[in-house]
Amino acid sequence: VDRTELQVLLTRVADGGISPECALDSLVSGPLRDDLGYADLGFARVDTHRELRTGDPEVVFAAGKTAEETVAILCALRETSKERPALATRVPEKTAVAIQAAFAEALIDHAAACAAVGPLPRPRGAVCVVTAGTSDFPVAAEAAFVTRAFGANVEQIRDVGVAGLHRLLAVRRTLDAADCVIVVAGMDGALPTVLAGLIETPLIAVPTSVGYGTSLGGLAPLLTMLNSCAPGVVVCGIDNGFGAGVFAARLARRTG
Amino acid sequence: VDRTELQVLLTRVADGGISPECALDSLVSGPLRDDLGYADLGFARVDTHRELRTGDPEVVFAAGKTAEETVAILCALRETSKERPALATRVPEKTAVAIQAAFAEALIDHAAACAAVGPLPRPRGAVCVVTAGTSDFPVAAEAAFVTRAFGANVEQIRDVGVAGLHRLLAVRRTLDAADCVIVVAGMDGALPTVLAGLIETPLIAVPTSVGYGTSLGGLAPLLTMLNSCAPGVVVCGIDNGFGAGVFAARLARRTG
Amino acid sequence: VDRTELQVLLTRVADGGISPECALDSLVSGPLRDDLGYADLGFARVDTHRELRTGDPEVVFAAGKTAEETVAILCALRETSKERPALATRVPEKTAVAIQAAFAEALIDHAAACAAVGPLPRPRGAVCVVTAGTSDFPVAAEAAFVTRAFGANVEQIRDVGVAGLHRLLAVRRTLDAADCVIVVAGMDGALPTVLAGLIETPLIAVPTSVGYGTSLGGLAPLLTMLNSCAPGVVVCGIDNGFGAGVFAARLARRTG
Amino acid sequence: VDRTELQVLLTRVADGGISPECALDSLVSGPLRDDLGYADLGFARVDTHRELRTGDPEVVFAAGKTAEETVAILCALRETSKERPALATRVPEKTAVAIQAAFAEALIDHAAACAAVGPLPRPRGAVCVVTAGTSDFPVAAEAAFVTRAFGANVEQIRDVGVAGLHRLLAVRRTLDAADCVIVVAGMDGALPTVLAGLIETPLIAVPTSVGYGTSLGGLAPLLTMLNSCAPGVVVCGIDNGFGAGVFAARLARRTG
Amino acid sequence: VDRTELQVLLTRVADGGISPECALDSLVSGPLRDDLGYADLGFARVDTHRELRTGDPEVVFAAGKTAEETVAILCALRETSKERPALATRVPEKTAVAIQAAFAEALIDHAAACAAVGPLPRPRGAVCVVTAGTSDFPVAAEAAFVTRAFGANVEQIRDVGVAGLHRLLAVRRTLDAADCVIVVAGMDGALPTVLAGLIETPLIAVPTSVGYGTSLGGLAPLLTMLNSCAPGVVVCGIDNGFGAGVFAARLARRTG
Amino acid sequence: VDRTELQVLLTRVADGGISPECALDSLVSGPLRDDLGYADLGFARVDTHRELRTGDPEVVFAAGKTAEETVAILCALRETSKERPALATRVPEKTAVAIQAAFAEALIDHAAACAAVGPLPRPRGAVCVVTAGTSDFPVAAEAAFVTRAFGANVEQIRDVGVAGLHRLLAVRRTLDAADCVIVVAGMDGALPTVLAGLIETPLIAVPTSVGYGTSLGGLAPLLTMLNSCAPGVVVCGIDNGFGAGVFAARLARRTG
Amino acid sequence: VDRTELQVLLTRVADGGISPECALDSLVSGPLRDDLGYADLGFARVDTHRELRTGDPEVVFAAGKTAEETVAILCALRETSKERPALATRVPEKTAVAIQAAFAEALIDHAAACAAVGPLPRPRGAVCVVTAGTSDFPVAAEAAFVTRAFGANVEQIRDVGVAGLHRLLAVRRTLDAADCVIVVAGMDGALPTVLAGLIETPLIAVPTSVGYGTSLGGLAPLLTMLNSCAPGVVVCGIDNGFGAGVFAARLARRTG
Amino acid sequence: VDRTELQVLLTRVADGGISPECALDSLVSGPLRDDLGYADLGFARVDTHRELRTGDPEVVFAAGKTAEETVAILCALRETSKERPALATRVPEKTAVAIQAAFAEALIDHAAACAAVGPLPRPRGAVCVVTAGTSDFPVAAEAAFVTRAFGANVEQIRDVGVAGLHRLLAVRRTLDAADCVIVVAGMDGALPTVLAGLIETPLIAVPTSVGYGTSLGGLAPLLTMLNSCAPGVVVCGIDNGFGAGVFAARLARRTG
Repeated sequence: VDRTELQVLLTRVADGGISPECALDSLVSGPLRDDLGYADLGFARVDTHRELRTGDPEVVFAAGKTAEETVAILCALRETSKERPALATRVPEKTAVAIQAAFAEALIDHAAACAAVGPLPRPRGAVCVVTAGTSDFPVAAEAAFVTRAFGANVEQIRDVGVAGLHRLLAVRRTLDAADCVIVVAGMDGALPTVLAGLIETPLIAVPTSVGYGTSLGGLAPLLTMLNSCAPGVVVCGIDNGFGAGVFAARLARRTG
Repeated sequence: VDRTELQVLLTRVADGGISPECALDSLVSGPLRDDLGYADLGFARVDTHRELRTGDPEVVFAAGKTAEETVAILCALRETSKERPALATRVPEKTAVAIQAAFAEALIDHAAACAAVGPLPRPRGAVCVVTAGTSDFPVAAEAAFVTRAFGANVEQIRDVGVAGLHRLLAVRRTLDAADCVIVVAGMDGALPTVLAGLIETPLIAVPTSVGYGTSLGGLAPLLTMLNSCAPGVVVCGIDNGFGAGVFAARLARRTG
Repeated sequence: VDRTELQVLLTRVADGGISPECALDSLVSGPLRDDLGYADLGFARVDTHRELRTGDPEVVFAAGKTAEETVAILCALRETSKERPALATRVPEKTAVAIQAAFAEALIDHAAACAAVGPLPRPRGAVCVVTAGTSDFPVAAEAAFVTRAFGANVEQIRDVGVAGLHRLLAVRRTLDAADCVIVVAGMDGALPTVLAGLIETPLIAVPTSVGYGTSLGGLAPLLTMLNSCAPGVVVCGIDNGFGAGVFAARLARRTG
Repeated sequence: VDRTELQVLLTRVADGGISPECALDSLVSGPLRDDLGYADLGFARVDTHRELRTGDPEVVFAAGKTAEETVAILCALRETSKERPALATRVPEKTAVAIQAAFAEALIDHAAACAAVGPLPRPRGAVCVVTAGTSDFPVAAEAAFVTRAFGANVEQIRDVGVAGLHRLLAVRRTLDAADCVIVVAGMDGALPTVLAGLIETPLIAVPTSVGYGTSLGGLAPLLTMLNSCAPGVVVCGIDNGFGAGVFAARLARRTG
Repeated sequence: VDRTELQVLLTRVADGGISPECALDSLVSGPLRDDLGYADLGFARVDTHRELRTGDPEVVFAAGKTAEETVAILCALRETSKERPALATRVPEKTAVAIQAAFAEALIDHAAACAAVGPLPRPRGAVCVVTAGTSDFPVAAEAAFVTRAFGANVEQIRDVGVAGLHRLLAVRRTLDAADCVIVVAGMDGALPTVLAGLIETPLIAVPTSVGYGTSLGGLAPLLTMLNSCAPGVVVCGIDNGFGAGVFAARLARRTG
Repeated sequence: VDRTELQVLLTRVADGGISPECALDSLVSGPLRDDLGYADLGFARVDTHRELRTGDPEVVFAAGKTAEETVAILCALRETSKERPALATRVPEKTAVAIQAAFAEALIDHAAACAAVGPLPRPRGAVCVVTAGTSDFPVAAEAAFVTRAFGANVEQIRDVGVAGLHRLLAVRRTLDAADCVIVVAGMDGALPTVLAGLIETPLIAVPTSVGYGTSLGGLAPLLTMLNSCAPGVVVCGIDNGFGAGVFAARLARRTG
Repeated sequence: VDRTELQVLLTRVADGGISPECALDSLVSGPLRDDLGYADLGFARVDTHRELRTGDPEVVFAAGKTAEETVAILCALRETSKERPALATRVPEKTAVAIQAAFAEALIDHAAACAAVGPLPRPRGAVCVVTAGTSDFPVAAEAAFVTRAFGANVEQIRDVGVAGLHRLLAVRRTLDAADCVIVVAGMDGALPTVLAGLIETPLIAVPTSVGYGTSLGGLAPLLTMLNSCAPGVVVCGIDNGFGAGVFAARLARRTG
Repeated sequence: VDRTELQVLLTRVADGGISPECALDSLVSGPLRDDLGYADLGFARVDTHRELRTGDPEVVFAAGKTAEETVAILCALRETSKERPALATRVPEKTAVAIQAAFAEALIDHAAACAAVGPLPRPRGAVCVVTAGTSDFPVAAEAAFVTRAFGANVEQIRDVGVAGLHRLLAVRRTLDAADCVIVVAGMDGALPTVLAGLIETPLIAVPTSVGYGTSLGGLAPLLTMLNSCAPGVVVCGIDNGFGAGVFAARLARRTG
């Protein structure tokens, strides 16, 4: 909540610059005046105050939106936040083209299906994104892109599955040095448990929908991760690299 | 049941205008004569008495029907009900074209995939349709179209998700003034709970199949809504804007 | 939100009776001052403003609470609301004894496992609670008790299952005359669909966990109700007579 | 098992026409000699003795087979059974063309996706196939086709859903006169329960995968039917009109 | 529906013995007069006309009812039907004692948890109840008791699981001679499929909740049976020996 | 199937010692005469020929049977097989007492809830049973008891969970030397995957129902094991140590 | 892994104090010598090196273990770690008594069902544990106990459910000041989403098995949390306060 | 782990050829030096030591990889293992073309969607792959291809479903003579149970996703197999012919 703005309002009441009734109207609609908290685009209400509240601006989930809608929301977000880029995730290929056309400086990662408009923040802290298999890469790429865009350094380590433990051991020093580790795995989802028994770094597990039929679209690795016998594993939704990246970046910014 | 018709029949028995045996035959087949209760189109039996029983005429679920079948049922319904339009939901694009060709006056909402043939009834009462995210719009559009066609005023409020509560607070007055609120939400489905803790208006929740993989095709928000810790939330099936609109219109017509 | 209280605060700021800084502190913590919005009992924060916001006071869910805790919360609620009784649902037998000891005037319904402390409000409107089988009675009793305590008249109709339709037809007039119908059913959960095709009254369906093994603890009738082919059926969670009662009473108070 | 053949074998042993050792070899491989019980086509072993054992010949499930494979199996079946047609179900459009080309006399029902090669048996007994909605028609068509091909008369009654009970009552006499009723329904799956409470005819329920999202691909009506509160409802798998037709025909042939 | 009664009513209208208005009142409440179609016991509405409609009287599901309630309903049913016994299923031990005390002639089967009051009907046709393992016996016992009480002869064959096929083959003649076979099986639920490939008799499968943890309370054998690759298997709900018995008896009475 | 017995029968036919008709009757009921293939105890048909067919005698699943029934079946099995002990699994404490009373020489393992009557066979080959946590012990004990009773040596290794990999590495030599490894694990079920990536020995995974709420009664580790990213892991049902022991012993007897 | 120990070993090899063969034997069994990495108690292998690897010692999951076993493992852990207490979770009441008897200084929290033996570490950083309802308290108590025992300060905030948002707003400053927030919620599980939209602190959500029947033992709030539309919510398994406490303490120790 | 290499390292330390510090660096990263245990291709880390550890080389899961990636990994594997071919499974048609272009000697099985590059090993032992229906063929083909490539002889037996048991009996001798049997079945999945009751050969069951709607994508046969009442059935994941082939080949190589 914007404390300063409230202070201004109350001082004006004390000064007689605004009547108590009028101030009342503003206040009953919410902690902030309606016209300040969001931008109404007709088809969407962009939350322009989210960065004030949570430290991070709103992000566009571009799947299911037209290219025009995504570009319009990115414009609104770009105006709101000066120090953070406007982001879009799950960007369809057609929308990616429209974003590049609208914003020449846009940074687009096609593997991650993500776009950032505006300069990336100076990174603090370090996050490792580990994948169990090559097929988990798109989810890991989303996690890595979002981590960087939310203000942390990021390093990717690919294809270090449990079936060959020495591949894991070879990267242990890198993992120990990180502020946070994101582990992306499908199929049996056993990698986070094994890693959590080896390292001290806080670990976020992301199940993916990759696998044979019994994977049940990612439910199998999700359950494995939620039941991890190594303590201290926390979990995001299936294929939700975005959520893992946001959490990891927040953690790394605080500790890095 | 049509009391008048029965009265006519019994009076005719008393008058000797019809034999008891003949009346018996009519009556054992149901409360109404066979040939009056529905129109048999061969591929469908249109329930022409539903409006008499429930106050609202039958509606065509057009998905999985040919354009010709949908148009034929709309014709039958149009003849039955003089004061209410004949409606079709889940109208494929191709069927929409056929409806427009068959009925010049047809009102078609492409976002809602709905069509109405015949004049809309004079609206009574007011219903608000609230969506949590922009991707939930098609379900909300169906709910809104049906609400209006079933005889209530309707207002849509889009994109007021829980992650930015002040957007909610900004529209609270509108919600308080309505006779009924329909809340459409996917992903975590938390919006109905939050709203139900803030307002007095009866609230109907509709889960949508929008979301990342863990949404399980809408089961996740459905369960959230059924378990709402705010009392008095009632729920419709996944993506079932139609059912919510019917219930909301009935409620608004009674209270508005 | 208590508009009056805010007006008092702002007038005091205008009058100089309170400094803007001090008012600021109150306001940033919420629309109302902390010490007004709830009663902190240590083990629970009773929401004393819920009636102001939603028209209905908070209710104690007594299962899993000690008898002492339930009685203490009922005391707090009793002081808050003068015109509505303090309610507890899912009251274990032992807690029921403690409530009766603490409040001589308490109204306790053992079949419903509910208790009300304080005079019942003058009822407006009428609600029918229909059960498909005798085993569904406890859930129906909870729905009926809550409906009455929340301010509507209530009538119960028992054991009118679908396998004997004439039992249904015999009560149709009563159902037609009500403002709202709650239908409680386990096993196949078909009763709400059949009723919704016969009457005009808004209908709320409540699945119960009664049935043979394939009922899956109530999931089977829940799914039946959510998929009802009769339009306008809305649904509450399994065995949730409470939620149905709250919604039905709100609806009946508006239309009755 | 072919008793006659065994008798021949044993008589030959008694006669010395075959040595005990040689007879032993035949018998340990099964109740019948290997080369008699099936036709080995390389990619399939057609069960040419099924009619001897169960009264009905094997049927080709054509989905997932090439058109050539289906035609080849139909040939083998055609040679085996003189009095019953060779049948194929779930026939893709392309395979239907190939069947018609290979067997000029083939009877093909495109709605049912079924084909029969050879004269239909003289029908005994009567089966009614009832559908709740027009979208359930393909499953009902499969049930009807199979019923007829397996030797019973069949009548279809379409679109008599629960939401308009009088449509049901209008056809009750037909249902009462049948030897068996197949009820095909999706969405809430309530129709079999309602019918089973009204008639005396044995009733087989078939759930379909038709419906809004909460139908869960037919699991919802399946559960409804398995939990029917009207006794004596038996159930087939989702969309399995074939199984229902086989059972119904067997029943009708015995009672008709 | 009781045709005779209707005829009487209409003749009285024709005779002037009753006014059309008065007859109208009776008829709009249902096809029959309210006071004839069921017996209202306060806590239950016993469907006294079910035998007229469906050929079989209502049955008491005693689980979840008090011993007094069950006895009272049995009394009401006993008065209604002269030629069929009043039945109760899922009878708790305590209720069984009360039934025996109230009706000296009551026939009680403790393994089946069933009771019959009144003389059993003369049996027609024959039903075999087959169990795969000894633990499935209670469900089979319920099926057998109900089959007999609903008017068919019944024979039980126990413990002929698939793992020893020769046990099956030894009883094949008995199965071939029956009018209907009920197969009760837990664990893998494979027995109905194997039997259906060997015999011609119509076959009803009943899954039980017996088994190791992966049986999921009977869901595993239920799914096996619904997916049977032998055509013509129909299925009842988990542990629902009652439903199987009703269906089997109806079938046997028609064909025996 | 007992080839010798058939040879005797056929020789007698050839000799005229038995008529072809009489031999026919024996043979049509199955490959063997009815009275030889099983022992009919009234409540159970003990498969006395299973050892002839599959190399291993039948085993009593004692849960859900009375102590008397279990003892009677053990007697029947004891008479059938001279070289293998009669076994019972899932033995309730009360039944264990009855077995010890009936058979002084009975070997009873209370942790495994298993009993063996008769001398154990001379062991061939070696099986290791590994448990991830101490709570998985009862399932492992059942697997070990059955392995030994089915004719293989067995060694148990307890509590070598994935969270401390060095415990695993410490026992690797033992695992490499075995003919088969059974891995019993609950919670995340990751142990089989990790082991299968380290050793060459064939590995059978058994999920257990041990764990926090998200284990879903063992479904979580079951899915993990079925989705193992290390190839060559095969799986038994939840808590099914018995099945794992049977398979492992067969394998070890062949290779040891 | 203990680098120092390895260095000692290798120096001894260089010094000739140990032969390469002997060193080889130690090393092939694992990164550390067998006899150092765990304490073998016969029924359990206590991982005495976990603190070296992951910064935190092993913890006893006491459910399903005898009181004697739990006490023995606590002894072994107590000897291993000097600076951290030995912990047990899910302690049955009987085991709690045994622990108190064995270790006079043991700290036992009966609500949390947890025990700590040995001095608590000096806390760093601050964690808030928030509960939505009073019934979620045991899970929150476990989370709080573990957080403190793993080295972070902890504050509990109870009963601030979503249905009364002002209760949330009243504690926002406390939440903003924390290094990590654990949110424990059952029923609809909406609280983490709402909080995550209001604050900047990293947030861990824990679903509980509290709720009406549709909660499905905690699956409903689990899914809500995994699908949170507020980014950056990570989730633990149902009722797993332990895992949340471990993660939160690690995070707080790094940032506090 | 490569013992020889370690011995060389330690001897060099003893000889002073390498400093303890330097050796320490190698060892802490894992039992083997980083640069030896895998080949880092950038997008994948090929486990070149898997054959040393588990006796079988790594295999490429080609679904979800580009044709270029699959070819590159095959190259790396080809260099690592001289005596075993490099394998790829789930090969898309386009990738198959690329493999054939890159490796003229590649053996490609289009039905199995598998490719092998390099000479097949000399086979030991015999495996039978049995399919219940023709639609299960692709999964069986994958199992057969992998079995052969992993070093065992393989024979396929097609279309011997349970509905015609004599087809099974006809091939019993072949099954008895094998070292291992793989049974592939969809729909009801009953075939493995029936076979396991007839033969002595170890049996691996593979469920397929073939079937009508109630098959639930293969969950139905998976559950049937896990609950098999014939002891000693072990199970692989849905459609996982690969895993079954690996296990069967290992078993056959040991016993053949």
